[in-house]
Amino acid sequence: MDLKIAVLAGDGIGPEIMEQGVAVLSAVAEKFGHNVSYKEALCGAHAIDEVGDPFPEETYKTCEEADAVLFASVGDPKFDNDPTAKVRPEQGLLAMRKKLGLFANIRPVTTFDCLVHKSPLKDSIVKGADFICIRELTGGMYFGKKQEPAVNADGIEDALDTNYYSRPEVERILKVGYQYARQRRKHLTVVDKANVLASSRLWRKIAQELAPQYPDVETDFMYVDNAAMRMIQDPRFFDVMVTENTFGDILTDEGSCITGSMGLLPSASTGSSTPVFEPIHGSWPQGKGLNIANPLAQILSVAMLFEHFGLKEEGALVRKAVDASLDQNVRTPEIQVEGGAEYGTKEVGAWIVNYINGVVR
Amino acid sequence: MDLKIAVLAGDGIGPEIMEQGVAVLSAVAEKFGHNVSYKEALCGAHAIDEVGDPFPEETYKTCEEADAVLFASVGDPKFDNDPTAKVRPEQGLLAMRKKLGLFANIRPVTTFDCLVHKSPLKDSIVKGADFICIRELTGGMYFGKKQEPAVNADGIEDALDTNYYSRPEVERILKVGYQYARQRRKHLTVVDKANVLASSRLWRKIAQELAPQYPDVETDFMYVDNAAMRMIQDPRFFDVMVTENTFGDILTDEGSCITGSMGLLPSASTGSSTPVFEPIHGSWPQGKGLNIANPLAQILSVAMLFEHFGLKEEGALVRKAVDASLDQNVRTPEIQVEGGAEYGTKEVGAWIVNYINGVVR
Ligand SMILES: CC(C)[C@H](C(=O)O)[C@@H](O)C(=O)O
Ligand SMILES: CC(C)[C@H](C(=O)O)[C@@H](O)C(=O)O
Repeated sequence: MDLKIAVLAGDGIGPEIMEQGVAVLSAVAEKFGHNVSYKEALCGAHAIDEVGDPFPEETYKTCEEADAVLFASVGDPKFDNDPTAKVRPEQGLLAMRKKLGLFANIRPVTTFDCLVHKSPLKDSIVKGADFICIRELTGGMYFGKKQEPAVNADGIEDALDTNYYSRPEVERILKVGYQYARQRRKHLTVVDKANVLASSRLWRKIAQELAPQYPDVETDFMYVDNAAMRMIQDPRFFDVMVTENTFGDILTDEGSCITGSMGLLPSASTGSSTPVFEPIHGSWPQGKGLNIANPLAQILSVAMLFEHFGLKEEGALVRKAVDASLDQNVRTPEIQVEGGAEYGTKEVGAWIVNYINGVVR
Repeated sequence: MDLKIAVLAGDGIGPEIMEQGVAVLSAVAEKFGHNVSYKEALCGAHAIDEVGDPFPEETYKTCEEADAVLFASVGDPKFDNDPTAKVRPEQGLLAMRKKLGLFANIRPVTTFDCLVHKSPLKDSIVKGADFICIRELTGGMYFGKKQEPAVNADGIEDALDTNYYSRPEVERILKVGYQYARQRRKHLTVVDKANVLASSRLWRKIAQELAPQYPDVETDFMYVDNAAMRMIQDPRFFDVMVTENTFGDILTDEGSCITGSMGLLPSASTGSSTPVFEPIHGSWPQGKGLNIANPLAQILSVAMLFEHFGLKEEGALVRKAVDASLDQNVRTPEIQVEGGAEYGTKEVGAWIVNYINGVVR
């Protein structure tokens, strides 16, 4: 297969973990005879510094022309103090989502047995948890009509956001949910707040219409407050969960921290144009340049990338290599066992590449 | 002190736990020479069945005329399947909040050492966690303009909710946050999504203006997705957290389940009219009539009621009695230690009344 990859390394530890992601991608591609080409592009704080835009037009073009985007992370502390600043790295993220039509954000929550002790949850509760959060990514309050803080006609300062959803937006993301559920344990949980929100009542109405078309999948409905609890009390309940943008922002982050393997979780965002694959973690500016960042989430994003194109064996090999590195304690400091040697970002990446090449096993 | 209490027992286990709450209230009042009178009123599913309205006008009047409302819980499974039904028990809750102007929902998250093993979190993470979630309760998407699902002019079905906040609404709830923080560890965390939402930018702007007026309190800002994680990873970080209605719905429920003592957590809702005191848990219809529901959250709501009126000793005595009952394993089944005798709702309540009366200790 020919694969054109747009490489958006971004800020902080981004470039370091990206280097390892690309190395793994190349090693697997070579082994299986795929022809991969890469094109780097600016994004995030980095791009603001260089061209004044966190997602420049040229980056957009590079993404659009590619088959897939491999993304690392964006964000810089110098933008942290003023969330109202006009140009911010996050806006690059939002622009990328909107321009590439990335309406489906797919976040697997996977528990690695060897890291369960790192989970804030009791081992007995979290062990074996394995679900997918699907978050609608281009609708809701993120992109609905806003009114910034301003004094109104009555002399009162106010502000508003609009949580808007239309049937096509809801239908397509629910269908993504059903597709994933079908490939897994056939259980879809639709998370909403239909007892309060009109937009949620639209979601629920449409889900109730779609459910009979997927008789092999068990559909259930859960209020978002309940889902936030259930995820902690009984994470194994979930197989595939689907929800709207704002609820998804909260629940996917909650989900990502219950397994104790935040540095290992990849994600995919798909939609009408080029799909994007990225770690769920941030740019960790404090770790920058120290060769201590965990590259596994980036590397597992490569696995998701292969799988997206139907390249199952390729994806499986990446996962096998990651599992082997964990089993053999080839780990970055934050997940290393007590007394274990600490491997750097590069060393973990190199070991995985060697594994793929059959040099170590 | 003269205290007129409106008693809203509601549905499911409500009447059973209310009986114990009232017994404890009366015992303490008698001991301290307060003059308490009670008036019962209908609410919830029960009220729908009897008068077709989950928060009838008469109930509203009873509440308005009282000094405080002691509330138990509402909800019945027969209403669960259709969140779009016109008359539902939750609407009673929302009507009560709006009509009584209950803009501040105060939910202490307390860890009981003897129940930490029941927490889904590792003991080492949750032990000693002790914070208060303050949720704005009469604004945001709950009460903003809605459009129910309908086909629009372009022939597309859509729906929307409006997340509206005005300066007075935000100011008054932030001030409640500061008041609580002052009485505690002097740390206020304002939770918002100011990097995305205009309404959150209003919250943050106002909080940034208010902060210098409370130089003794450390104010910090946290995005809601981050707060959902932090609460699990490091719950002891929080002292007082304040947030808007929808985020608060999710975060307070998340908070309530991290301590393992969901059946023990009370709450207060205060505002422009009569304050309401109630357990955070629901009506648990399955437990109804079995004398197995834990009355402690209801009883601790009585403690909050006393404290609201500045009756600190009275509140402290209720808390001491509850602690004593736990220490001596006078507990309902779900929190009883292995091999311990199981006490019923009534027996736990009676023991606490006896403790207050000095009959047991
Ligand atoms: C940075 C922010 C705008 C973003 C979001 O809220 O979507 C982030 O939290 C995420 O989840 O990817
Ligand atoms: C029942 C529902 C309307 C209510 C809410 O969302 O406020 C409940 O979840 C709560 O938190 O009290």
